[in-house]
Amino acid sequence: MRDVSIIGIGQTIVGEHWDKSLRELGYYALAAALKDAKLARVDALYVGNAHSGALSDQENVGAMIADFAGLRGVEALKIEAAGASAAAAMRLGYIAVAGGLCDFVACVGVEKMTDQQPSTQESALAMSADGDYEAMQGLTTVSLNALLMRRYMHEYGYTKADFAPFAVNAHANAINNPFAMYRMNISPKQFAEAKPLADPISMFDSSPVADGAACVILAPSALAREFTDRPVRVRASAVATDTVGLHDRRDLLSLDGAAWSAQKAFAAAGVNPNDIDLFELHDGFTIMSALSLEAAGFAARGKGVELALNGEIRLGGRIPITTMGGMKARGNPAGASGLYQIVEAVEQLRGEAGANQVANARLAMTQNIGGSGATVVTSILERI
Amino acid sequence: MRDVSIIGIGQTIVGEHWDKSLRELGYYALAAALKDAKLARVDALYVGNAHSGALSDQENVGAMIADFAGLRGVEALKIEAAGASAAAAMRLGYIAVAGGLCDFVACVGVEKMTDQQPSTQESALAMSADGDYEAMQGLTTVSLNALLMRRYMHEYGYTKADFAPFAVNAHANAINNPFAMYRMNISPKQFAEAKPLADPISMFDSSPVADGAACVILAPSALAREFTDRPVRVRASAVATDTVGLHDRRDLLSLDGAAWSAQKAFAAAGVNPNDIDLFELHDGFTIMSALSLEAAGFAARGKGVELALNGEIRLGGRIPITTMGGMKARGNPAGASGLYQIVEAVEQLRGEAGANQVANARLAMTQNIGGSGATVVTSILERI
Repeated sequence: MRDVSIIGIGQTIVGEHWDKSLRELGYYALAAALKDAKLARVDALYVGNAHSGALSDQENVGAMIADFAGLRGVEALKIEAAGASAAAAMRLGYIAVAGGLCDFVACVGVEKMTDQQPSTQESALAMSADGDYEAMQGLTTVSLNALLMRRYMHEYGYTKADFAPFAVNAHANAINNPFAMYRMNISPKQFAEAKPLADPISMFDSSPVADGAACVILAPSALAREFTDRPVRVRASAVATDTVGLHDRRDLLSLDGAAWSAQKAFAAAGVNPNDIDLFELHDGFTIMSALSLEAAGFAARGKGVELALNGEIRLGGRIPITTMGGMKARGNPAGASGLYQIVEAVEQLRGEAGANQVANARLAMTQNIGGSGATVVTSILERI
Repeated sequence: MRDVSIIGIGQTIVGEHWDKSLRELGYYALAAALKDAKLARVDALYVGNAHSGALSDQENVGAMIADFAGLRGVEALKIEAAGASAAAAMRLGYIAVAGGLCDFVACVGVEKMTDQQPSTQESALAMSADGDYEAMQGLTTVSLNALLMRRYMHEYGYTKADFAPFAVNAHANAINNPFAMYRMNISPKQFAEAKPLADPISMFDSSPVADGAACVILAPSALAREFTDRPVRVRASAVATDTVGLHDRRDLLSLDGAAWSAQKAFAAAGVNPNDIDLFELHDGFTIMSALSLEAAGFAARGKGVELALNGEIRLGGRIPITTMGGMKARGNPAGASGLYQIVEAVEQLRGEAGANQVANARLAMTQNIGGSGATVVTSILERI
């Protein structure tokens, strides 16, 4: 197996891109990453996308973006794993480069959601849940997470206000990210007074639907320095799954899929949570942040919220998370978000995170979750 | 790179499975293939599917089938490449095993289409075309292929009746396939009198929408004989793309993507069309069969229909195609069809094709096409 590195990154601003089509968004991120890697062509293009069928009436997005980018003939496929689609695309790119079948692979995550009405968006997102046992009964992504959050509060004695630090921290960090959607501070008071979506989840617990695309270029580490003087090594890339329906989980408050995915990644990299300098976690909802911190080993069971309350998730804390704004404030273009996480981790490891730079960041971990814990992709990246 | 073999195959009957859900169909094929390989667990599950979002309101089908099959924790992802989704899933499984990242990978293709009204099915299928430039103008998969067929007839002087042998041959072969949807002969007269769908395409030019699932289990060839005494080696697996929109093609009557995909596969396998004993091609429409034979090098330009008229595509002919009924008569569950092709090729190479056995079949080629030539996956399989 070959060592793999990221030699280029690209991203579009996250927002409401009503004037740009799906293919344009994907292309802009791809073109930026190719330029960053000083590369004209790749051996394969793997595109992560969750909702192009339901929201843009378009499938075969792999071929479509290859076509628009002028990469005629190239191997190009779409990967779908709900909210984990983008990191899943990188996982398959990693396999192709690590195994020696490709030298250069572009992994794009792209999503275009805001052209549609909120009800259509919600229906599309609910396709990530269990259709027969959840969505058909009226459960949505928000209400499923509300059930988890309510159970968490009941089990461990937290109040809704205790979840504020996740959103406050994300917004504080987004201010310095030129690609973020909501570059403004929010206060704990604003968090407490936000409009409810599905109690106890209110507007600031939930990450906003958005349009955007992000891309990384993978190459064998042995070739990486021909293209960049700041390669970032992929120390580990792992996928694990759990049941799609929440009712079938071993334990509602343990994201087993996230734990298995993290354990696989730690084992492959030969590191543990204490070695990680920053953690771009899946903050689709504040409850997901808490459960992810616990599943990945950064907090004991029931202590994820406490970690946040103690300020340990901030820049300078024990384990900085959502360092460029996270899904909450950078915005959450579902099937693209996993590659935004990875692009931001690379910025940190390159020392290009500006005012949000995590000092001496050497090891970053990202975790991208699909379907409230059903599919979990963990990556561990290293400055070399 | 490791040599890769298929150690197990499974499939469901193709048809209208109104009593079985998407996850059940996928599971039945997976379970049959695992049983065939005498295997209890795999390292990864890659699921090809094109239309679960639009037709079943369900995404994250990788995790869902892993969950239903009791493969908790396993790496599981969905791959989408329109009608080429299933073979694309096998391509990624091949990469994982060849590169040494996984030992055992299950590749499932699954599609459930017949619960929906024809207009909904047609809208879903049109998502494989170019949304902005084709589908939005009212073009459907059928009408796009009708344009290609009309041009072909104009250019080379064929009549509509000349395309009959593709459908007649497919139906004749389906009679002996217990998994086929339409196990009955059709005559050239019935072909000529079939109801028009989009002139010149009529009902017997077009493959029927269907439900079904097929699966192969991949393993390193070095381990294959521990699981089966009839392993089938994957000599080549290749993907190439062309423009999604037909208006952007270099030449309407040359499927460049299919040609590049075939050339990559021939080069990887070190063989040429003369070495191939049977060709499971993408007969979604009779015109696709003709263009595929030409692009893959089995017929000269404009001579694909002549090859069929001369009887060379039949069992015992120069290059038998659709030997178990093809998409036309076995049925075409879009995102599953590519793995039906591969499963049927394996049956031939194992000598298990019964009355349809191609004598001394040693090398089989399959070609699965998404979006009227936009994404093309070619596999070359060998009896060892």
